[in-house]
Amino acid sequence: MIRINENYTKLTASYLFADIARRVGAYTAANPDKAVIRLGIGDVTEPLPPACVEALHAATDEMAQRATFKGYGPEQGYAFLRDLVARHDYAERGCRIEADEVFISDGSKCDCGNIQEIFATDIRVAIPDPVYPVYVDTNVMAGRTGPGAAGRYEGLLYLESTAANGYVPAVPDEPADLVYLCFPNNPTGAVATRAQLEAWVAYARRHQAVILFDSAYEAYIRDPAIPHSIYEIEGAREVAIEFRSFSKTAGFTGTRCAYTVVPKTVMAWDRAGRPHPLHALWNRRHTTKFNGVSYPIQKAAAATYSEAGRSQTRALTDFYLGNARLIRAAMAKLGLKCVGGDNAPYIWIDVGRDSWEFFDLLLSRAQVVCTPGAGFGRCGEGHVRISAFNSRANVEQALERIAAALQ
Amino acid sequence: MIRINENYTKLTASYLFADIARRVGAYTAANPDKAVIRLGIGDVTEPLPPACVEALHAATDEMAQRATFKGYGPEQGYAFLRDLVARHDYAERGCRIEADEVFISDGSKCDCGNIQEIFATDIRVAIPDPVYPVYVDTNVMAGRTGPGAAGRYEGLLYLESTAANGYVPAVPDEPADLVYLCFPNNPTGAVATRAQLEAWVAYARRHQAVILFDSAYEAYIRDPAIPHSIYEIEGAREVAIEFRSFSKTAGFTGTRCAYTVVPKTVMAWDRAGRPHPLHALWNRRHTTKFNGVSYPIQKAAAATYSEAGRSQTRALTDFYLGNARLIRAAMAKLGLKCVGGDNAPYIWIDVGRDSWEFFDLLLSRAQVVCTPGAGFGRCGEGHVRISAFNSRANVEQALERIAAALQ
Repeated sequence: MIRINENYTKLTASYLFADIARRVGAYTAANPDKAVIRLGIGDVTEPLPPACVEALHAATDEMAQRATFKGYGPEQGYAFLRDLVARHDYAERGCRIEADEVFISDGSKCDCGNIQEIFATDIRVAIPDPVYPVYVDTNVMAGRTGPGAAGRYEGLLYLESTAANGYVPAVPDEPADLVYLCFPNNPTGAVATRAQLEAWVAYARRHQAVILFDSAYEAYIRDPAIPHSIYEIEGAREVAIEFRSFSKTAGFTGTRCAYTVVPKTVMAWDRAGRPHPLHALWNRRHTTKFNGVSYPIQKAAAATYSEAGRSQTRALTDFYLGNARLIRAAMAKLGLKCVGGDNAPYIWIDVGRDSWEFFDLLLSRAQVVCTPGAGFGRCGEGHVRISAFNSRANVEQALERIAAALQ
Repeated sequence: MIRINENYTKLTASYLFADIARRVGAYTAANPDKAVIRLGIGDVTEPLPPACVEALHAATDEMAQRATFKGYGPEQGYAFLRDLVARHDYAERGCRIEADEVFISDGSKCDCGNIQEIFATDIRVAIPDPVYPVYVDTNVMAGRTGPGAAGRYEGLLYLESTAANGYVPAVPDEPADLVYLCFPNNPTGAVATRAQLEAWVAYARRHQAVILFDSAYEAYIRDPAIPHSIYEIEGAREVAIEFRSFSKTAGFTGTRCAYTVVPKTVMAWDRAGRPHPLHALWNRRHTTKFNGVSYPIQKAAAATYSEAGRSQTRALTDFYLGNARLIRAAMAKLGLKCVGGDNAPYIWIDVGRDSWEFFDLLLSRAQVVCTPGAGFGRCGEGHVRISAFNSRANVEQALERIAAALQ
């Protein structure tokens, strides 16, 4: 008799954004005349940069001719894209990352979800709270936790991000083996200073731990003192894996391209104490279970590094940051405390009440979708995340409606 | 101290096609003047069908305008594509598959590799030999096997496909929980009759097992008596999951789109004996670790179902089957026994000697790349796979060179 992976039955809730979609669907079905503005899931709204559109058309034409047609590409991605990433995203910022340490994929969600497979199941995992649910859920599915209750799972070490620590958790007093960090943070929009990241790298080196650093939002950093990559920190090449995505940088949420950096110097150990380079393990996982990103999509991603592409993507992130400034100002005017929005497209608002209740209130009174903080973990309770991803007109209208609903 | 998933250290060889690429690379580096013809990996060579090219261009233009831009789509795929699959690939063949039982993905390799996550690790897995390496390797990585030696792993039940059974294994005398089947077969090109599939479905029902049915090559079936889908067999809706791909049907190996069908009626059990629908588990896995296929790519896949798309993809598979006929005839002339090539793009040749030795011989004397059977398992020894994916001119030249080399 075939049996299931019973770890799935420990999952305490359905995937957060599926929950939100269900509530919004029910509301719009009951109120077909009301126009809902979505500042919830954090999905981009502006079209692809012209450089990417041009590259997609050109690559499509290549696929139409036998001489230029592309079949299976390298699972790890084409050299043209890995080279551009290594050069522009790392070498230009003084980070020593080789092109063959870059693994191109179809999304950071996949990479963040799959990376845990290369580690033992009985390791100690440290995860921020609030947090992007994928980090937690994929470890639950893999059996690294006990049962869950009240939004937490036995066996995980939670790194609490609260107003008291400025939403950036300090290193814990106890050891952990695998540490998830995300800066600029989703959901809080908080950023980590160089000193804070140095403390995490030192912690990982001290405990022979590995940091999984999600920097999907680095393109939103405007403060020149804030590191964009964990590899800007001395010693990180031995202890950190970094995730990046074109989703929020270049509007690729529906186009799908991302990458993961695994330096050849990052190690993990077997029971006998022998070190194994994680680069070889991830390469084995990636080549066995993945077949590379669509060629036209890789060409579109490569176009973000052209001169035109770079200025167009910068304009895109500038635009969303303009929205974020308006949101912050409106929240301040309403007397609500918030963080984020200056170096990140998310604003994390202390609403001083149950976060799903506030979600329902905004939806029913203002027809605005936000993301309830409780969906990101226990420390998210009392907060909501508002995303800056929308047109200027929609953001302005949403802010007017919110002001009217809350006054 | 962070530890690795030690199951990875059980893997006895690197990924087969990486091995081949390495040997071919070494040969071409040493013989830069020799033009190598690749009939190895089974990668398509002909351009995308015009209907798909047109759809890709049109979808790219949609991504360039705010009003038609698409961000995150449903993780399971857009309804427009799921509907087309359910209608054309299933309803039209008399199979009862609903659109929401179809999960669109970026490749069957990913789906075949990931599906095992939803099952317990201590189940009994039956796997054909020879076999597509991904089925085996992903179960090794998940810890469902003991150590490996001489191309086999402790704990797996091998279903031997040999000349004696026409390369279609009969159901075993002992029970298994999870059974991988692939017809038309990769690597042998053999097809299973309705009676043979009925025996497998009956076996699965008797043992409360699940069949993972890979039908990536169904578009090559020309014999009207051969089922294209496991769901053409009565009772399969309760015991089978099916994998399909646009890779070999429409030349999507570099474009990337596939789908997996999980009927809501397929169950697996927990330790307490309670049944769980696998549809819910796979949906949870898919929505948590995947973010949907690129929108333009889904539009291109949908175009294969238009009237033009259907006739263009039919012409494509007809073309490759024409190559296959030439290969079969040439092998017969050389006195080599073979199967496949009539309802599949692969020809499985009994070469009567060590398969890597034959691979090296063909490469060095004929500059033709085949796939050594030993790479697919112990029963593959003594065989090579030749793929029909190439231009007519290349196939003809390869066959001339092979004839000269072997005479």
